[in-house]
Amino acid sequence: MTVPGSKVTCAVLIIGDEILSGRTQDTNLAAIARYLAQYGIDVPEARVVGDVAAEIIAAVNYLRTTYDYLITTGGIGPTHDDITADCVAEAFGVALHEDQSILDLLSARWELTPARRRMARIPDGGFLVRNKVQGPPAFGIANVFVLAGVPSIMRGMLEDVGHRMRPGAVTHSKTLRVDGSGEGVIAAPLEAVAKAHPDLSLGSYPFFSQEGYGSNLVVRGRDLAEVESAYAELEAALRADGITGLTAVENA
Amino acid sequence: MTVPGSKVTCAVLIIGDEILSGRTQDTNLAAIARYLAQYGIDVPEARVVGDVAAEIIAAVNYLRTTYDYLITTGGIGPTHDDITADCVAEAFGVALHEDQSILDLLSARWELTPARRRMARIPDGGFLVRNKVQGPPAFGIANVFVLAGVPSIMRGMLEDVGHRMRPGAVTHSKTLRVDGSGEGVIAAPLEAVAKAHPDLSLGSYPFFSQEGYGSNLVVRGRDLAEVESAYAELEAALRADGITGLTAVENA
Repeated sequence: MTVPGSKVTCAVLIIGDEILSGRTQDTNLAAIARYLAQYGIDVPEARVVGDVAAEIIAAVNYLRTTYDYLITTGGIGPTHDDITADCVAEAFGVALHEDQSILDLLSARWELTPARRRMARIPDGGFLVRNKVQGPPAFGIANVFVLAGVPSIMRGMLEDVGHRMRPGAVTHSKTLRVDGSGEGVIAAPLEAVAKAHPDLSLGSYPFFSQEGYGSNLVVRGRDLAEVESAYAELEAALRADGITGLTAVENA
Repeated sequence: MTVPGSKVTCAVLIIGDEILSGRTQDTNLAAIARYLAQYGIDVPEARVVGDVAAEIIAAVNYLRTTYDYLITTGGIGPTHDDITADCVAEAFGVALHEDQSILDLLSARWELTPARRRMARIPDGGFLVRNKVQGPPAFGIANVFVLAGVPSIMRGMLEDVGHRMRPGAVTHSKTLRVDGSGEGVIAAPLEAVAKAHPDLSLGSYPFFSQEGYGSNLVVRGRDLAEVESAYAELEAALRADGITGLTAVENA
């Protein structure tokens, strides 16, 4: 049963040796999190595993049964180390079949080599996820969405994902930037306001740059009025402690 | 018992709501992986969890008992949402104590507020990890290293970590860049060479840019001579298939 405004969660599983070797900097987790925030969907956990079947299968099964949804990225190309489709099928205990619409799309552009045919395989009971950028579509099965690893392609596929999920209550946030004060003096007023608002999340994200140091204080919650009043209380509490250099950050 | 040249593993646990909300782009995983590669240490898995005690404790306990080492980042500042020290102590079933050398260091620069004292707490049986960049040291306990989340500080702390770990056999890699051919034609020769060298890892990392498309083919392994011969076989196999636009990538 859908409870309006209830919490909806989606885990992210990043698949690929290149992320774990540091050869490639992952940017998909942050892109997915920001995208899902528009639908009021939280990402409570993410995992990164290599191109190892047992690890992928175990992570898929844990994450898909623990959270409302799971998005995976990586491992759906035509090469021998692209084993995500096989692993997702095995996680669900189903076989793979070749999707005729993908075969048609591939053969319209290219010779159908065995490698390219691999990209037409989707698990029995699965569905296609549109790819408007480059190459064949992605796929999903039940509450799992299996997307490409290349960021530009992944982001295009993502646009066909959010509308298929149950929306949650959107989180509102307001950010107060504090220049020239460290967390050591910010902590006490921040904690006092956090304790007064247990339904909100108050975080402090320090920065250190050549121009100076300080922290971004982020008030997050599902009730906009409460976010705004807690933000005002925080600003007043910091001023009462003699802390200056406060700036409201727009669209944080 | 230490087997010379054996495989040594280190998991990474990224802690912080800001990473899971997409507000902050994590760069610590890639930095840690590249740093550990110099010591021949593999990162087989990474996890990202929020500022939630039960999640942090469960992840610490799983990762520290599954792999040789664990590095965590984030949650060691002075604010109320910095709970990593508490969680690591609970994971090991030990108490926290205030380290006198950290208290001395803090009080030499600042008034010792309750918030700042939080940063002096380390688990009983733990040890300090030097921080040459900014603020108090980090700490470790047994095979777990607990570092800051701010990347510049984390990277400074990391320099005091590698020499404490048992080194593994360093992985060698050679990268062959293929311009103008997609993975659909690369896959067959790549797989043939991969099958002939089961001890090596052969990966394909496609790119799509305004200048064109192609893929970086990476041959990785602990035996340099085998990496070099597999690379030569791969290059020959691609040429035999009529694939052009091959370039050796330096220091990939």
